[in-house]
Amino acid sequence: MKSLPKHSGAFRVFALGALLALATHALAQTDPLPSWNDGAAKKAIVEFVQTTTTQGSPQFVPPAERIATFDQDGTLWVEHPMYSQVMYILESVPALVKAKPELAKVAPFSTVLEVLKGDRAAISKLTMPDLEKLAAATLTGMPVATFQAEAKKWLAEAKDPRWKKPYTELTYLPMQEVLKYLRANGYKTYIVTGGGQDFVRVYSEATYGIPPEQVVGTAGGTKYGYTKDGKPFLTKEPKILLNDNNAGKPEGIHLMIGRRPQMAVGNSTGDQQMLEYTKAGDGARLSMLVLHDDAKREYAYGPAKGLPATKVGALTQALYDEATKKGWIVVSMKDDWKKIFAFE
Amino acid sequence: MKSLPKHSGAFRVFALGALLALATHALAQTDPLPSWNDGAAKKAIVEFVQTTTTQGSPQFVPPAERIATFDQDGTLWVEHPMYSQVMYILESVPALVKAKPELAKVAPFSTVLEVLKGDRAAISKLTMPDLEKLAAATLTGMPVATFQAEAKKWLAEAKDPRWKKPYTELTYLPMQEVLKYLRANGYKTYIVTGGGQDFVRVYSEATYGIPPEQVVGTAGGTKYGYTKDGKPFLTKEPKILLNDNNAGKPEGIHLMIGRRPQMAVGNSTGDQQMLEYTKAGDGARLSMLVLHDDAKREYAYGPAKGLPATKVGALTQALYDEATKKGWIVVSMKDDWKKIFAFE
Repeated sequence: MKSLPKHSGAFRVFALGALLALATHALAQTDPLPSWNDGAAKKAIVEFVQTTTTQGSPQFVPPAERIATFDQDGTLWVEHPMYSQVMYILESVPALVKAKPELAKVAPFSTVLEVLKGDRAAISKLTMPDLEKLAAATLTGMPVATFQAEAKKWLAEAKDPRWKKPYTELTYLPMQEVLKYLRANGYKTYIVTGGGQDFVRVYSEATYGIPPEQVVGTAGGTKYGYTKDGKPFLTKEPKILLNDNNAGKPEGIHLMIGRRPQMAVGNSTGDQQMLEYTKAGDGARLSMLVLHDDAKREYAYGPAKGLPATKVGALTQALYDEATKKGWIVVSMKDDWKKIFAFE
Repeated sequence: MKSLPKHSGAFRVFALGALLALATHALAQTDPLPSWNDGAAKKAIVEFVQTTTTQGSPQFVPPAERIATFDQDGTLWVEHPMYSQVMYILESVPALVKAKPELAKVAPFSTVLEVLKGDRAAISKLTMPDLEKLAAATLTGMPVATFQAEAKKWLAEAKDPRWKKPYTELTYLPMQEVLKYLRANGYKTYIVTGGGQDFVRVYSEATYGIPPEQVVGTAGGTKYGYTKDGKPFLTKEPKILLNDNNAGKPEGIHLMIGRRPQMAVGNSTGDQQMLEYTKAGDGARLSMLVLHDDAKREYAYGPAKGLPATKVGALTQALYDEATKKGWIVVSMKDDWKKIFAFE
C-alpha cells in the first residue's frame, strides 16, 4: 500500500480556505461603529446596512445603486462658532487688501479687518450681501489651481479657536466610522454641502476618504482660457451654478449623481429637502439628523428641544417634528456618541 | 524514517499560487483590444495604460486619479445622419401635438410633422432656435421620472434608419474595448457629451457600463416640489446650467469631476478644448480624435483630409492640424478598426 500523507494537499488547501472564511467572518463580527453607544441610532444604521447589502434580503440594493450623501458642516465636522469656509473668506481679506490697498477703507472689507483685529462683535455687522461680496472677492477671479493652492495652505495653518487644532481634525469620529462602514459595504459616500464645492474638494479625500468627484457643493462657473504661451486653464467666475442648500440639495444630487440616495445625513434646515427626497424612495431608505445637544464636549444648539437658537446650522422644532413623523433617525451627540473626536 | 509525501501540503499551496499567478499573467498577455488593427493608435493606448498603471513607472498615476473622459456622439456611437437625441426630440413631437392639438399648425412643430411624414428635406428648415424650442418642449416641464420612462421606452423601440437596429446597438466595438481595458486597469470612465445629461444617463450603464454619476452632459436645472399627497419629486426646467460643448467640456469636467482627465477621446470641434485641457496636464496624458473615414462600414466626413463636410460632428482641418502638432492620436476608423460593430 502506498503511503499517504495524513492530510493531503487538497485537504490543506481546503483547510486554508476555511480558515480564511472564518477570519473574514470574525472580522465581520467586529463592531463597525465602536464610537457609538448602543441605542436606536446605531441599531438603525447597522440594520440599514445589513438589510440593503445582504444577498437575498427583500430590500437588497445592487452595489451600483448604493449611494449615501452627507452634509458636511455640523454633520461631519464642527460648524460653530462659524463655518470653516467663512473663516477662510474672512482670513483671506488681509492678503486681498495688501494687493488692493484701496479696499482697506471700504465696507465690508474694513469691517472684516476690525473683526480680525479682535473686535469679534463687528462680525454681526456683516449682512448676507456683505458675505456674498466677500466670497466673490476671495473665492473667484483666480485660476482654479491658484485657489486650490491658497485653500490648501490656509487649511494647513489655520486653527479652530476652541481646540486650537486644524479644522480638518475637527471631524466627528462616529461619522468617520459610518463613512468607512458604508464603503466597506459597497456604498459610494458623497458629501452634499452648502459649502463651496471647490473648497471642500481640496481636503475631502485626505479628511474623509471622499474623492473630489464625490463632493457636491455650492458651485460657481469657471471660464476656459489660455495663458500667453497657449496653456489652457480655468478661471473661477463669480457666477453661481448651483446653490446647494435646501431644495438645492436634491437638485444638486440629481445634477451631479443622477440617482436618489439610499441614505442621507444632515443636521439643519438646509438638509430638510435632501432628507425628504431620500426617505421618499422605494425600499429601505435611511434619513438621519444630528442633534447638537452636547454643550460640554461640542456645542448645544437647536432651537429644537429647547436648545439655544443659532444662525449657524439651526435645527428647528418643525424639522425635528418632521423627522419624528417621517421615521428619520435623530442622533443625539450627547447620548449616541461615546467619543466625538479622534484626538480625545 | 517517517514517510513524507512527495509534495507536501505547503508545497501544493505554493504551487497553486504559482499557477494562479501564471494564469493571471497569461490573461494579461491576451490582447485587450482585439478589434483594433496593430498600428500607432492601438500602440499609443496600450503604452498609455501600461505607463500610467505599472508600479514604479516614472509616469505612474495613483488609482484615485485615473480619469478618462469620452465624448459620446461620433466617438462611442454613430451620430449620422443625425444625433440620436435629436431623433428623440423629433419623434416625441406627435405625442406632444396629441396632448396640445393647437401646436399642429405652429412652426417648428408643424415642420417636424412634415419631416416625420416623409419629407426629409423639411429638416433643413429647422434652425438652431427651432431645435432649442423643440428640446424645451420635449425634454422639460415633466417630472424627472416621467422623462426617464419616456426616453427608456423610445430607446427600446426606435431604430436607426440604416442598420434598422436600436441606437444603443450602434456603439463602436473598439471603443467598448477601450472602456473595458481602462476600467480593468483602475480607470474611472466618464462620458462627457454635448448631449443631454439626463438622456444619456438613461442608457449609459446598460450600454457602456458607465453609471449615471459618471455622465457629464448638457444639463438643465430641476425644481424640487411635492405631489398633492406630499411626496417630493423633481421637475425638469427649461433652464440650461451647463452647455457641455467646446469650452463647456473642460468647465463641465471641473464642475462634475474636479480633476483633469489623464485621457480624453473625441471626434469633432466640440471636443477641442477637452482634448487640449487633458493633454496639457503633467505626466503621461493621452488625447485622441476619431476620424470618420470609412464610408463603406460607417460614414465618411471631415472636412479634414478632404473628407465631405458635415454639420453633424465636423472635424475641421484646423483641428486635425492641432492634433498632429500637439501629439494627439488620430484614430482612422478605416485603418485602425478591424471591426466596427459587435453585430458585424
